[in-house]
Amino acid sequence: MSKLDELKTIVGEIVDLGHSRALLEWDAQVNMARGGAEDRGNLIGTLVGIMVEKITSEKTARALEEAEAEVAGLDDDNDDVRIVRSVRREFDRLTKVPGDWMANFARLTSVAQNAWEVAKEKSDFAHFKPHLSEIVNKRREYAGFFAPFDHVYDPLLDEFEPGMKTVDVKNIFAKLRPEQVAVVKEIASRPQVDNAFLLKDYDGQKQWDFGVDVITHFGFDWNRGRQDKSVHPFTTSFGLDDVRITTKIEKNWPAAAMFGSMHECGHALFEQGISPKFRRTPVMANISMAVHESQSRMMENLVGRSLSFWKFFYPKLQSLFPENLANVSLEQFYRGVNKVEPSLIRIEADEATYNLHIMLRLELEIALMEGSQDVETLPEAWNAKVQEYLGITPPNDAEGVLQDVHWSNGYFGYFPTYALGNLLSAMWWEKIERDIPDLHNQFEHGKFDGLLTWLRANIHQYGGKYTSQELSQRITGGPIDPMPYVRYLKTKFGAIYGF
Amino acid sequence: MSKLDELKTIVGEIVDLGHSRALLEWDAQVNMARGGAEDRGNLIGTLVGIMVEKITSEKTARALEEAEAEVAGLDDDNDDVRIVRSVRREFDRLTKVPGDWMANFARLTSVAQNAWEVAKEKSDFAHFKPHLSEIVNKRREYAGFFAPFDHVYDPLLDEFEPGMKTVDVKNIFAKLRPEQVAVVKEIASRPQVDNAFLLKDYDGQKQWDFGVDVITHFGFDWNRGRQDKSVHPFTTSFGLDDVRITTKIEKNWPAAAMFGSMHECGHALFEQGISPKFRRTPVMANISMAVHESQSRMMENLVGRSLSFWKFFYPKLQSLFPENLANVSLEQFYRGVNKVEPSLIRIEADEATYNLHIMLRLELEIALMEGSQDVETLPEAWNAKVQEYLGITPPNDAEGVLQDVHWSNGYFGYFPTYALGNLLSAMWWEKIERDIPDLHNQFEHGKFDGLLTWLRANIHQYGGKYTSQELSQRITGGPIDPMPYVRYLKTKFGAIYGF
Repeated sequence: MSKLDELKTIVGEIVDLGHSRALLEWDAQVNMARGGAEDRGNLIGTLVGIMVEKITSEKTARALEEAEAEVAGLDDDNDDVRIVRSVRREFDRLTKVPGDWMANFARLTSVAQNAWEVAKEKSDFAHFKPHLSEIVNKRREYAGFFAPFDHVYDPLLDEFEPGMKTVDVKNIFAKLRPEQVAVVKEIASRPQVDNAFLLKDYDGQKQWDFGVDVITHFGFDWNRGRQDKSVHPFTTSFGLDDVRITTKIEKNWPAAAMFGSMHECGHALFEQGISPKFRRTPVMANISMAVHESQSRMMENLVGRSLSFWKFFYPKLQSLFPENLANVSLEQFYRGVNKVEPSLIRIEADEATYNLHIMLRLELEIALMEGSQDVETLPEAWNAKVQEYLGITPPNDAEGVLQDVHWSNGYFGYFPTYALGNLLSAMWWEKIERDIPDLHNQFEHGKFDGLLTWLRANIHQYGGKYTSQELSQRITGGPIDPMPYVRYLKTKFGAIYGF
Repeated sequence: MSKLDELKTIVGEIVDLGHSRALLEWDAQVNMARGGAEDRGNLIGTLVGIMVEKITSEKTARALEEAEAEVAGLDDDNDDVRIVRSVRREFDRLTKVPGDWMANFARLTSVAQNAWEVAKEKSDFAHFKPHLSEIVNKRREYAGFFAPFDHVYDPLLDEFEPGMKTVDVKNIFAKLRPEQVAVVKEIASRPQVDNAFLLKDYDGQKQWDFGVDVITHFGFDWNRGRQDKSVHPFTTSFGLDDVRITTKIEKNWPAAAMFGSMHECGHALFEQGISPKFRRTPVMANISMAVHESQSRMMENLVGRSLSFWKFFYPKLQSLFPENLANVSLEQFYRGVNKVEPSLIRIEADEATYNLHIMLRLELEIALMEGSQDVETLPEAWNAKVQEYLGITPPNDAEGVLQDVHWSNGYFGYFPTYALGNLLSAMWWEKIERDIPDLHNQFEHGKFDGLLTWLRANIHQYGGKYTSQELSQRITGGPIDPMPYVRYLKTKFGAIYGF
């Protein structure tokens, strides 16, 4: 057995443990009765403990070094080189941070999450403040384990977006910000579109059936996955051939399940499309979150909120819900599902305003890490930015600084991947529209396999082999660029709002 | 930390791994799309490998020895003594059998199971024969690892029924056989009862609802478990507070889901009733299968096929299915669900004939292990015994020697636990009826908490602390005795069939 194969054997077990853990977590969201929580915590804790023990073991360290020697000199694009590099990244991340620190941080965020829940419910920032202060301190400490670095935020960003640098994100967003603010202002000055027909009673089973119909057309492989219901929709996988999504049905807001299913299906198509040669390697697990999000946002927005998509699917939807839609034209419906309105809550934001929610979070996160923003005055800083970017002010902290769970989990560095995903989706889209000239004609006839074939060939098959910047270079010939997204917004909403 | 606590920490992780594996298997039966099979096999293989590695490690060996020294001299009934003993049993079982042998046997049975499926489908014993021969040889080899023993079948029996000896099982069955054959002959000589009303169209959702109603009355804790559908009904648990059952709905045979749910609920009540002090110890995992089966058979038969049970539930069932039951009296219904008829298939057998199916399997298993029966002539030997005990002859091997999956899995020693469970259920029942004089009156009013309280106090709380013989001694003052079951059959079926 080669040294590389030895490493692959070790890593294969670790990937298996990760997938087993994923099932424990999926089941806790989808099936488990509440009484099982304590037991479930023990099971997950044990698997995580064994994973960390195995990754950071002497045996792994030795196998890793030997495999690195074995692949040294191979082409940088070689799959084995990338597999070994991916293991190195995990190994370093877990050995640089002391085990005690990890355990303490896990306890801290576990308590903080409960405090955040209470604080959000009562809209009482003071209740969450001491926990957040401690988390910020700890996160700065965490960055210190990876010194030297260019920026204190780099190690945090890198945890969620491999290889990404703070300076790059700052530059991308600096270019995006004025453009996107301008688009939103332009839209705000025009007459608003009507989407009252979406606020009616839509039968839950029919919503489910429609979602299944759509994602089946998208190419979701039901032989290698399934869809369930959960409070917070998500995608997970327990291997290359078992990819699961969840959706949430809201009786009086069919957009939730409809676009939610498309969004998660985008994630799932990616996971189902990874090449079998990466089975049981970290390349299938450690995927750029921005690239992942580019797939979900693409299916939800660039496909799912396009006119050509609805030319095919609207008659189907209309016949499912004649009581609500018989008198709503395709044009009215298309405009309704694309209504833009500055709003307070990120997860409810439309395509035109979404990135602004991310930018303000990113700016606050960086300032907190740099020490130029304190936790004490965070709510005021938040509200000021919402006013600046969206022209509205949160009436309370529950709808402001307390709305997201991420910080209570210690997830600093996560938010920007959402916006980067949007930008990437538009970059891919410009290329796709060039490569498949009759793309929209295909959509109008319910055909999405041309798109899927393109995504498989250019993105999905690689899993986490490439960073987001590498993939950008491969597909578009340049680094991540916000302008395609800006052009997309201007073209689409210019047509809808008439500017 | 005491040595005992050290052992408990080690063992706690192993129990957690076992419960994680149980979830992987539950999910494979209940949820997983077929495409996920290969990935799932990898995940289970990895967890099992880690479990075996952990149980048989030097670290466990040392902790076990030290803990044994620490509890030496404590009362034999002490919980810690029993926990340590339970670990010793697993440790010995897994260290006495070489790892290579285990891996080979796993491969052998994996192939054999596929061969059995094909053989059963084609009713072609020859196709399965070479695999079964090899399994029998391997099982004899397995017994050899535990030499010296009183009987070659002892180590196999012990794997499924801790502490049970072949000589005891033989004696019990020798006493039972003539009595049970006599009861069946007596019934066969009487006019048959009618159950044609069960062979009609019963709505699936209503069947499900009725089953849920029944097991809720039995005391199934929905906050600590759930019920799903699967092809083969079973019970599993992922901890003390997450116990799951499955059921199977057959449109034209409501008895399947009805009594199936009660059966699995009996298993689940046991698991949900184990004392929290045994959380994450092998005492909650390694339970006598006979005692476990005594609980499922009790809820299915002694409760679920009793007249007092149906006095309460039959009006409910009648109002759910008036189209089938409006003209069927309680008395007719009760007799119908207790129809006795010699049949070929074990899993479809009634209370009076079930044990006879087990006896013939036990006799053949022992003969195969002793070498007095060869695999070559097994079908003829099978058919002769079916004729002897049940008065009928299988028309083909699919309905004869090929009907059960157990042998292809290598499960020799498993079958007798089913029959022992029946015997134990009747032993407990005589005691329960003495301890709760108005038991049947409680059932007639839909009250089952008196029964559950008794079961919790006398059986459930202990989990696997006691062997079946120990529990028999504690509850009835004597060893396992078939006569209570014989008395039960005579009384019940004497009334129904008039003898």
